[in-house]
Amino acid sequence: MHPYSDNPDDTVAALGEQKLLAKIRRWLGAAMPAAPHGMGDDCAVLPPAPKGARGAALLTVDPVIYGEHFDDAIPPRAVGRKLLARNLSDIAAMGGQPEAAVVSLALDPRTRLDWLQAFYRGLAALARQHRVPLVGGDLATHRGGLVASLTLLGHASGKRVLTRTGAREGDFIAVTGVLGGSLASGHHWKFTPRLAEGRWLAARPEVSAMLDVSDGLAKDIHHLVPAGAKPILFADLLPRCKGCDLRAALTDGEDYELLFTLRGTPAKAARLAAEWHHAFPRVPLTIIGRLSDRHASAVGALDLAPYHGFEHFR
Amino acid sequence: MHPYSDNPDDTVAALGEQKLLAKIRRWLGAAMPAAPHGMGDDCAVLPPAPKGARGAALLTVDPVIYGEHFDDAIPPRAVGRKLLARNLSDIAAMGGQPEAAVVSLALDPRTRLDWLQAFYRGLAALARQHRVPLVGGDLATHRGGLVASLTLLGHASGKRVLTRTGAREGDFIAVTGVLGGSLASGHHWKFTPRLAEGRWLAARPEVSAMLDVSDGLAKDIHHLVPAGAKPILFADLLPRCKGCDLRAALTDGEDYELLFTLRGTPAKAARLAAEWHHAFPRVPLTIIGRLSDRHASAVGALDLAPYHGFEHFR
Repeated sequence: MHPYSDNPDDTVAALGEQKLLAKIRRWLGAAMPAAPHGMGDDCAVLPPAPKGARGAALLTVDPVIYGEHFDDAIPPRAVGRKLLARNLSDIAAMGGQPEAAVVSLALDPRTRLDWLQAFYRGLAALARQHRVPLVGGDLATHRGGLVASLTLLGHASGKRVLTRTGAREGDFIAVTGVLGGSLASGHHWKFTPRLAEGRWLAARPEVSAMLDVSDGLAKDIHHLVPAGAKPILFADLLPRCKGCDLRAALTDGEDYELLFTLRGTPAKAARLAAEWHHAFPRVPLTIIGRLSDRHASAVGALDLAPYHGFEHFR
Repeated sequence: MHPYSDNPDDTVAALGEQKLLAKIRRWLGAAMPAAPHGMGDDCAVLPPAPKGARGAALLTVDPVIYGEHFDDAIPPRAVGRKLLARNLSDIAAMGGQPEAAVVSLALDPRTRLDWLQAFYRGLAALARQHRVPLVGGDLATHRGGLVASLTLLGHASGKRVLTRTGAREGDFIAVTGVLGGSLASGHHWKFTPRLAEGRWLAARPEVSAMLDVSDGLAKDIHHLVPAGAKPILFADLLPRCKGCDLRAALTDGEDYELLFTLRGTPAKAARLAAEWHHAFPRVPLTIIGRLSDRHASAVGALDLAPYHGFEHFR
């Protein structure tokens, strides 16, 4: 659905801010608690955490932008869903638990009310599913554009926060799900953020570093590689989506799968994989390679140099 | 400064994302801690709070948008400063203490690097001044627009969070500073958020409700008025900026002053005002009226009906 209307009666301009806020409350429904724990004050006030229940706080922000992250072909419900899902994936990538979200919306006055309604309903549905209250936000005019930015607050689920730093030479490299073809298949707005999987992995001491694949494996893997090391990957091990070639699996991006490193012997890695398949029987887990010395060479190893992931502003 | 350049060498497109991120690290300097407590991972990890030091968590978000909140006449340094200052003002309005911020930037590829550098420097300078680490964010392409959205996490400074709800009939109404003329005078990008003042007021049990004036007193005051009550204000009591008429003081908006209600006798209100002037000798505090029964009429009281504050999307 095209988000703008030429019929002024269908637009946010026809309602104005106050009535629009009232509508948004209704669209969000149970996903939005009452003030001060939700919309309606200068800040959202978060309910105090149960004693001892909360690890380190996590904070992440990601937008969806008309013309960049979505177009007229994507249902507005899916746009709202994707906005939250992208941020949930970042919390998943650190093994965290989401806690509360705020949404900042910059809207052209011509934005259709039914577009916006579907957007909020999609956002609210996923928020309820993950019990993430939408505790506030901001609405502003932005002539000629539509930018929605969501900030998600979360906390580590245990004592440990699993970061991108922590891998070392000899660690195995593993990935969840399959890679590639996200835009073509609609995965980029349909995906389920790997929250339970992320928490499961963060609880395993042999998992040494993790991230979610958003700009393509070929680009994102470098964030996990410590100085002096390089990743040895094998093309035939890479789990690809149906019909995807190697380039697609390496560079398409928006996979929102977990990429992580694993310390220990091959037997230990195999044991973790076996326990994984018991815990998440429907989610593939594949060991795709290993971190090696920068000067090492392995016969048949993938040369990543010709593959670039998504780079903004190019 | 116009934020876009026709010379590709001067733009973010010339650098690409990775080099731009490196530059932003440099521009932010000490305002950005190292990962995982700053930029560089999927989420920012907030350092644990000192034991017992933290009240309820507060979360707020506000954007600055090219063509709406700033134009070519405003120095980019001031735009960055304003982005944080707006959010600090929301934390001030609840008597809170700011803790950490994330910034989401949607940028046209033609955005000038020197514009962006000045923007980040202005943001970092105010962040350092208030000891608010910029712990992360997001960069995305937005052809034809420039939207910067900042989310600020904070906490109540004491056990109490001062909300907009809590006033009742008979409470006095008071405001800090002077009102009106914010756009003409440049106050809207030069103002100092009233953080210390907000905390001071939140610690006083006789202060019953508070907000910061952003859309104009005539509009914002209604958020403090409980059902069945109305505000009785007197035009000659309103502290106006130099050269401002009554309409400007009531409707210009972007004042970022604290508007609050005060329980108790006139003598008690006068005592608070006297202690205020001792604590903040350079910041005016003015009692401008009182909350009254909806049916009451007071001779000389201001009729607010003809005055509207700023309304988005109109």
